[in-house]
Amino acid sequence: MKLIDGKVVAENLKAKIKVQVDELINNDIHPHLAAILVGDDGASQTYVTAKEKACAEVGILSTLYKFNDDITEEELLNTIEFINNDPEVHGMIVQLPLPAHISVDKVMAAISPEKDVDGFHAVNVGRMALGLPSYLPATPNGVIELLKYYKIETEGKHCVVLGRSSIVGLPVSIMMGQKKYPGNATVTLCHSKTKNLKEITLLADILIVAIGHPEFLKADMVKAGAVVIDVGIHRIPDAHKKSGFRLVGDVAFLEVSEKCSYITPVPGGVGPMTIVSLLTNTLKSAKSEVF
Amino acid sequence: MKLIDGKVVAENLKAKIKVQVDELINNDIHPHLAAILVGDDGASQTYVTAKEKACAEVGILSTLYKFNDDITEEELLNTIEFINNDPEVHGMIVQLPLPAHISVDKVMAAISPEKDVDGFHAVNVGRMALGLPSYLPATPNGVIELLKYYKIETEGKHCVVLGRSSIVGLPVSIMMGQKKYPGNATVTLCHSKTKNLKEITLLADILIVAIGHPEFLKADMVKAGAVVIDVGIHRIPDAHKKSGFRLVGDVAFLEVSEKCSYITPVPGGVGPMTIVSLLTNTLKSAKSEVF
Repeated sequence: MKLIDGKVVAENLKAKIKVQVDELINNDIHPHLAAILVGDDGASQTYVTAKEKACAEVGILSTLYKFNDDITEEELLNTIEFINNDPEVHGMIVQLPLPAHISVDKVMAAISPEKDVDGFHAVNVGRMALGLPSYLPATPNGVIELLKYYKIETEGKHCVVLGRSSIVGLPVSIMMGQKKYPGNATVTLCHSKTKNLKEITLLADILIVAIGHPEFLKADMVKAGAVVIDVGIHRIPDAHKKSGFRLVGDVAFLEVSEKCSYITPVPGGVGPMTIVSLLTNTLKSAKSEVF
Repeated sequence: MKLIDGKVVAENLKAKIKVQVDELINNDIHPHLAAILVGDDGASQTYVTAKEKACAEVGILSTLYKFNDDITEEELLNTIEFINNDPEVHGMIVQLPLPAHISVDKVMAAISPEKDVDGFHAVNVGRMALGLPSYLPATPNGVIELLKYYKIETEGKHCVVLGRSSIVGLPVSIMMGQKKYPGNATVTLCHSKTKNLKEITLLADILIVAIGHPEFLKADMVKAGAVVIDVGIHRIPDAHKKSGFRLVGDVAFLEVSEKCSYITPVPGGVGPMTIVSLLTNTLKSAKSEVF
């Protein structure tokens, strides 16, 4: 069994991004990400800080628009419109969740597709599905980059995806079936209504697990030699830890790792890759590679 | 084995569409489709005529913009822009193929998503994938309507789709996995790179075949009792026919029909449904149900 080290891959990609950012700066284009944060949710603050830090590491400028949670929807939409029209900003993210009085759908729809570096806008989802240049969604793109870094064969392999969310399971299932590398896999998308799940997972050469249940995938569901990509991350109580908890994924790591050829750990697998996708998309925007 | 009669389903849906068109007309909204036809390709002319006829049957107005094949790309784009801005037109289609000197991608991208009743534009593909209101692509929607009419159970069933084209295989694979009826199926998307295809098709409760090879799916690839939807249509030479050819699908109908629970014939299965989707989308546009 070989461990897929997301930290190493992320650092490798960041180094490559930095080279391209430097080139752009030499041509007087300074890639720039705007992040909107509403309220003082601790986790949201942590995510945004990590994104700003990653930007700084590769030389991408970042601007934080921070608001109290009593901001009106109109004020927020006005801010988005302002950023849409700011020619110096190439990408924009709105950290979720938003307060209940603000419509997430309206806010997301207000972000110009040209600056939608999270890849959530319907135009970008559609462009991805059609195989056109697009801002790829962060987690699916992270999975693809891991497979690519480790040169894992995907053509003609049976890839089983667990979970059909619009930001992970569905897009990664589409990407794995596309005519390119990584891709060209036969793809099965499973979800809560799937019957005989184990029969299907046992067929998989590549398993991508994004089902949102701690340690859901057990060893007896995995074919010997399969590649296992674990997208989940959960805190579960653990009296042996000083913090009182430990992090686990959607895969029962210890038992599954004995059976498979490659596996992503949690933490340190897919997680570190997601921020890299954000940097990649901001760079793509600055280079006008999508629109 | 029960035959899925696309003509009957299409007539049934057209009658329902007519009722809704009449209601709109009573409210002074007259649903209106514009069709653009370039050159004098016989098949293209036949398709466009069939679409105009179907519009007339349900009371939808249609206008044909017919050009010689020496029309410039600019003239064609100007026509599309004119139709985009015509408030009396709700839907627009450009009949393919176009002459070689005109970029299909440019032409398709020029059609306003609000009038893209073929559902080809990235915004509509993305909205479909995200489960938002959208103009559904004609053939996948036709397949879904057939399953619905015959009340075929799809939840938890294993649906295997053969063929990953952006206008049939891929979108129907997405739709069959979505959280609704018809849908909620476990979906496997197969294509030219798939290995051990027969092993996979034998798992299928529902087979949707859009692979583009005459009589490709044989009886030994089908589980007893499966539902088989044949999207293909091919002319093959047949000395016993006056015309010198007969029409077949992607499924070896005679042998497969003995094994399955439901099957679509060719012709008369999926074919008659595709024009109905165009009418449905034009109606949706007139009712402002998507944008």
